[in-house]
Parts: sequence; structure tokens; C-alpha cells
Amino acid sequence: MNDILQHLAILLEQRKTADPSTSYVAGLYAKGLNKILEKVGEEATETILAAKDFALDPQAIVKETADLWFHSLVMLVYLQVPVDQVLNELAARHGVSGLVEKAGRNPS
Amino acid sequence: MNDILQHLAILLEQRKTADPSTSYVAGLYAKGLNKILEKVGEEATETILAAKDFALDPQAIVKETADLWFHSLVMLVYLQVPVDQVLNELAARHGVSGLVEKAGRNPS
Amino acid sequence: MNDILQHLAILLEQRKTADPSTSYVAGLYAKGLNKILEKVGEEATETILAAKDFALDPQAIVKETADLWFHSLVMLVYLQVPVDQVLNELAARHGVSGLVEKAGRNPS
Amino acid sequence: MNDILQHLAILLEQRKTADPSTSYVAGLYAKGLNKILEKVGEEATETILAAKDFALDPQAIVKETADLWFHSLVMLVYLQVPVDQVLNELAARHGVSGLVEKAGRNPS
Repeated sequence: MNDILQHLAILLEQRKTADPSTSYVAGLYAKGLNKILEKVGEEATETILAAKDFALDPQAIVKETADLWFHSLVMLVYLQVPVDQVLNELAARHGVSGLVEKAGRNPS
Repeated sequence: MNDILQHLAILLEQRKTADPSTSYVAGLYAKGLNKILEKVGEEATETILAAKDFALDPQAIVKETADLWFHSLVMLVYLQVPVDQVLNELAARHGVSGLVEKAGRNPS
Repeated sequence: MNDILQHLAILLEQRKTADPSTSYVAGLYAKGLNKILEKVGEEATETILAAKDFALDPQAIVKETADLWFHSLVMLVYLQVPVDQVLNELAARHGVSGLVEKAGRNPS
Repeated sequence: MNDILQHLAILLEQRKTADPSTSYVAGLYAKGLNKILEKVGEEATETILAAKDFALDPQAIVKETADLWFHSLVMLVYLQVPVDQVLNELAARHGVSGLVEKAGRNPS
């Protein structure tokens, strides 16, 4: 998997200089924080609906969660908050770094 | 960083057999899907508020985004959706795998 | 004021037979419950953003709250839940009917 | 019905001087705008979930919509926005005042 979110954050940083008329993300940056946050709220609602409809359409939750994480990343990049801070916060809270080390020692 | 979200998903899977009276996550599983989705909605709102208050408190967005991603992971694990499907969806959509290869070839 | 929400609910009921290609509300009904609920979620987010920006634009909160209540009414009508049930619930919980009677006796 | 929302707004205004340790609403005012907006977001999510579960529990949507409207009213009162502005906005947009007059002329 190799740290998709971190590589995506690099890509989103590069889009800051893209043309808002051709790049969806550059268009969001140009519209400003409120438009980005509206998308976060919208995708949260769509994720919740997809979870409720999971038995009917099990693929929708994958797409909607991807949309939710994507737009939260756009928000972080817009605010110049490194995604590593969020990932470190999760690792620190849940002791996942220890798990990573253990997994490293026992790759099987 | 080493794929925090994937390791966290493993941890959240393990919590399925934990005691709901002592584990926060096991407690959420026991309460069921609606309670988990209420948390997703709640954390989305708190993320939006933290983004609006970013100038006053720049650390809050880190904690709230971590909460939002954490509870979306709990939702995925509850529904037995592998987090890799969401990460692969993001990679495929945004051509991030190409970026990863390029970064691999140019580690500096 | 004369019970705007109740009259609006009557209007929304009438729109059930309107042409989805010319009536916004008939279009929402045709798209189904999820689309209506996406609008409720969207307008809740926009209401929250307008409240945070109240000092900059004090009129936005009026428009966004109207949008939020309007789309919750569309939801109730779609589900065939009389708006009076919601208003009665509010009156019963908060003892507002008593207040109404008192106001009736003391119109000045 | 007699304008429940308007009477409720009067009641909520009166609660501004109540004791935050005994009045739920005074407690919300004391915690400030973000806490009130968190409640608006929370109740929007619960309304959406109740709508999805309508077939299982048709009463929940009444309670959750009441909660959503109640907390939007608390928000308006906190920001000193008269509820009549929202109701007038709805009436003006949807031509409901005309409907009211027509109803007045044809009470049967």
C-alpha cells in the first residue's frame, strides 16, 4: 500500500498551482475553505447513507469513504497541516507504532 | 509512517472480541451500526468547526481529523470492508501508484 | 405568521403530482429518499458554516436555516409524516401550549 | 397549532437568564456556539438515520426532526436572529402567504 494518503497529500500540494478551470482540486482551493468543508459534510452524509444501504450495494461504502478521506485531505492541504500529524496522532493514541514494530519483526 | 491505517484496522478487528465494558471500540460494536454512524457524523461536524477555528487553535484540526478517520475505520471494520479497498480506490482514482513508483526510483 | 410550516407541508404534498422536470421538489421526490437526506445533510453543514460566519454575513443564517427546515419538511412529506406530529412533539416537550393559552388570554 | 416555533423561541429567549446547572438550554448557551452547532450536526445525522430506519420505527423521525428544529432554534436565539425572519423567508420563497389567504377565504 505504501502510504497512499501521504503520496496523495503530495499530489494535492502540487495541485495548488494547477489551473482551477481544468483541475477539480485547484477549483476547490479557488472557491475557498467553506466550499471544501461543504464537501467534507456532504461526503460524511453520503458515507452514512452508503453504510445504511450496505446490504443493497456493498461497493458504495468504499467509494464514499474514499471521497470522505479525499476531501479531508484537501482540507488539511489547504490549511497547510501535514497529513503525518494526523497519522502520528492516530499511531500515538492507539499504540499502533508498537504493532508496526512487532509486525516488522514477525513478517510472516 | 508505514501504513498506520492498515495497522489500526488490524487492531480494530482484534477488538471485536474485547469486553464492551472496558474497550471503547468493543462498546461501539455492541451498540451497533447506528451508534458508529452517529460518531462519524459527529466527528465530521467537529472537524468542520475545528477548520473554521483553525486560526484560534491550529492543533484541534489534527485531533478532529484523527477522530473522523478513526470512526470511519471502525465503521469499515464493523461492516467487514477491508481498508485496503478504500486506499486502493484512492490510489487508482488519482494515479498515486505511479507517483509511488517514481518516488521509489528517486528516493532523494 | 399563521403556521407557515403547515401551509408549506400542504404545498409540498401537492407537488407530489407535479412534473419532476419542472418542479424542484417533484424532482427530489423522483430521485428518492437518499437524495432528500443528502440535501438535509448538506443544508445542516451550510447552516453550521453560516453560523460560524455570522459576523461577516448575518443574512446567510436565515437563508440556510430556511433551506434546512424546507428540506426536512420535504423529507417528512415524502415519508407521509404529518408536520403537526413534529410541532406537537415540540409543544408537548416544552410546555409551549400553556404559553400559547396565556398569550391568547393576554393579547397585549 | 398556533405558531409553536415562535412561542418556543420566546421560551428559549427567557432561558438566557436561567441557571446553566439546572436548565439544559442555559447550559448550551454557557458552553457557546460550537457546542450548539455540534448539537445541530448531531441531530441532523440522527434525523437521517431515523429516516433510513422509518419502516422499523416510524416514531423516531418525529422525535429526531423535533430535536433538529429545536437545536436550530437554540442557535437562532443564541445569535439573536428572530425566528420570524426564517419563517418569512420560507413564506416569501414558496408563495405560502398566498396560500394562507386562500385558506382564510375558504375555511372549509
